[in-house]
Amino acid sequence: MALRVGVVGGGQLARMMVPAAVELGLDIRVLAEGPDMSASIAATAEGDHRDAATVLAFARDVDVLTFDHEHVPQDVLRALVEAGVAVHPGPDALAVAQDKIVMRTRLTGLGVPVPDWAVVHDADELRAFLGEHGGRAVVKTPRGGYDGKGVRVVDDPSDVDDWFLAVAEAGADQALLVEELVPFTRELAQSVARRPSGEVVAWPLVETVQRDGVCAEVIAPAPGSAGRLADAAESLAVRIAEELGVTGVLAVELFETDDERILVNELAMRPHNTGHWSIDGATTSQFEQHLRAVLDLPLGATGMHAPAAVMVNVLGGPADGDLAGRYPAALAAFPEAKYHFYGKAPRPGRKVGHVTVTGSDVDDVVYRARAAAAHFDD
Amino acid sequence: MALRVGVVGGGQLARMMVPAAVELGLDIRVLAEGPDMSASIAATAEGDHRDAATVLAFARDVDVLTFDHEHVPQDVLRALVEAGVAVHPGPDALAVAQDKIVMRTRLTGLGVPVPDWAVVHDADELRAFLGEHGGRAVVKTPRGGYDGKGVRVVDDPSDVDDWFLAVAEAGADQALLVEELVPFTRELAQSVARRPSGEVVAWPLVETVQRDGVCAEVIAPAPGSAGRLADAAESLAVRIAEELGVTGVLAVELFETDDERILVNELAMRPHNTGHWSIDGATTSQFEQHLRAVLDLPLGATGMHAPAAVMVNVLGGPADGDLAGRYPAALAAFPEAKYHFYGKAPRPGRKVGHVTVTGSDVDDVVYRARAAAAHFDD
Repeated sequence: MALRVGVVGGGQLARMMVPAAVELGLDIRVLAEGPDMSASIAATAEGDHRDAATVLAFARDVDVLTFDHEHVPQDVLRALVEAGVAVHPGPDALAVAQDKIVMRTRLTGLGVPVPDWAVVHDADELRAFLGEHGGRAVVKTPRGGYDGKGVRVVDDPSDVDDWFLAVAEAGADQALLVEELVPFTRELAQSVARRPSGEVVAWPLVETVQRDGVCAEVIAPAPGSAGRLADAAESLAVRIAEELGVTGVLAVELFETDDERILVNELAMRPHNTGHWSIDGATTSQFEQHLRAVLDLPLGATGMHAPAAVMVNVLGGPADGDLAGRYPAALAAFPEAKYHFYGKAPRPGRKVGHVTVTGSDVDDVVYRARAAAAHFDD
Repeated sequence: MALRVGVVGGGQLARMMVPAAVELGLDIRVLAEGPDMSASIAATAEGDHRDAATVLAFARDVDVLTFDHEHVPQDVLRALVEAGVAVHPGPDALAVAQDKIVMRTRLTGLGVPVPDWAVVHDADELRAFLGEHGGRAVVKTPRGGYDGKGVRVVDDPSDVDDWFLAVAEAGADQALLVEELVPFTRELAQSVARRPSGEVVAWPLVETVQRDGVCAEVIAPAPGSAGRLADAAESLAVRIAEELGVTGVLAVELFETDDERILVNELAMRPHNTGHWSIDGATTSQFEQHLRAVLDLPLGATGMHAPAAVMVNVLGGPADGDLAGRYPAALAAFPEAKYHFYGKAPRPGRKVGHVTVTGSDVDDVVYRARAAAAHFDD
């Protein structure tokens, strides 16, 4: 009988696990939030991932449970483990990804380089941090943020008055995270995969380009990173995966500073936008690897098909909603590009797909990937 | 709204279209023969492909209808076209793939090189053919054969007494096909894809190794084929696709003779076992290309990721039926191999999966692909 993987959440990450599962002969089942989700083709149940009974019922018929996102509450995760479900990544690891204050605390405890940070409960504490960091800083809500949401650059505590109000109402243990504005030269991301029995593999370090807090482009490998920088990023990500006991894919978002240091920005314990290039550019994609890892199967090779791979997100899509109407021109113009769409309706700023191009010359590959993706702009 | 492709038949070819459809953002729907078919993840209906009402009902909600196999009867195909369904490949093209006598007649009419052949209705006619061809020949039933079924090498008409009996009972218009035993040095296959508006693209010519009439290995590109041989095969396949009006993938199985001629053995108007290497070895797989072609979308690039790709079929599988139990050793031994399984229970001789390896040195790639696949032998 085929190995059975259950995925909580029906978004595009679960969707992109489907091809890998089908090819590897796995039985993939998705607990979707509702009908017409990205991963509906594999949905065998619909329900709320915050409800323990729903998730327990879904998990009954799978060999391992994994996730499209990091939002399953700790009490649900603990109930699954107590019921004997193999949960990967596990609750202890996920706790670090679920709360940015926990994440900063753990990474600092491990001696991992991170931006200066503090927990702030009110305007006075934030004002003090601003005073020590040149008058500007980044404030983050510890939970629920993604794609730039829950993140604000502030130069006065009043910029986050609404958040402090929410914190005060929510209770004494609530707070915000404040971090220095790192003078970075570029952003990087290092993905690794780790399986329960200990094996860890890494993909090449990549450069990521963010626009409005959202990942717009990824270049693999990060130009000029071979050697010391790539080695440092890989060692760092491997150590974080091991110390936190991460199983499955771990993506580590990094800042590279002008004095050639790397600081950890964020962690994601699942396949991540910065690894989508691997579907078309690496021997083993992050989605196949995640499935292998959570099933504790030996991990696949991560070498690249070509010297360079560039992924460009399709953000928003055409205003008329007709993505398919753009296929003929795009596919004709760039027959070598790999087009990916997530079954999501176009909406301003929404990630509805991505395009990957591989080749020898990185500038040429960047040009072609951008031009191919631009066919789907409004 | 996503473009909708309906696939008649739920076998492994339909299954392998699913990853390509999911990635390209297509809505794929399968009319399966029953539950637990290879392509069940995409099954939206179950029923008999020989029943016009069943197929018409399934086709109502799709933009284009295509096939996992060539067995949909002509009257059903004609009814679909009359009902306004876009059917690719269409009835006229499929008629040539459905009947080996029609195929030989059409190819001969086009001046395409084929083995000597004849239609024989009884033992006397077969004896005459044997007398003119060294006393041995290949007899084929015109319909329903695959993977060596419906094919016999004979040196006496009595070897196919049972078939002549069936022919006599079936009616006056029935007959068998007899062909010369071609003294071939090796077997080759040339796949192309053609879309309704006329564009045709080809993959590299491949060498195929058959065992007991079943495809066992495929080497891409066919060693030593660059230049004249590859050009001749491509021209031939393109011409056949155009002359027969094939839409979607056309696979042309070829014999290479010791005097460097190529003769057409069989045609398949669908993705074919000899093209499975393209999933992991080419920019555009035969499954993605088939979907693009039947939707009349521009076709994708067919270049290879590496100088050589070798596919080895997993035939039969372990006697205990536990394919998944072989994953740990296989995946650990060859982390660079791509493993594909079709959700089919192991059974002697049955195609249950395949393994593809790519690389620079063809001998090394052949060795690794065979060794990786051998992990799943009984």
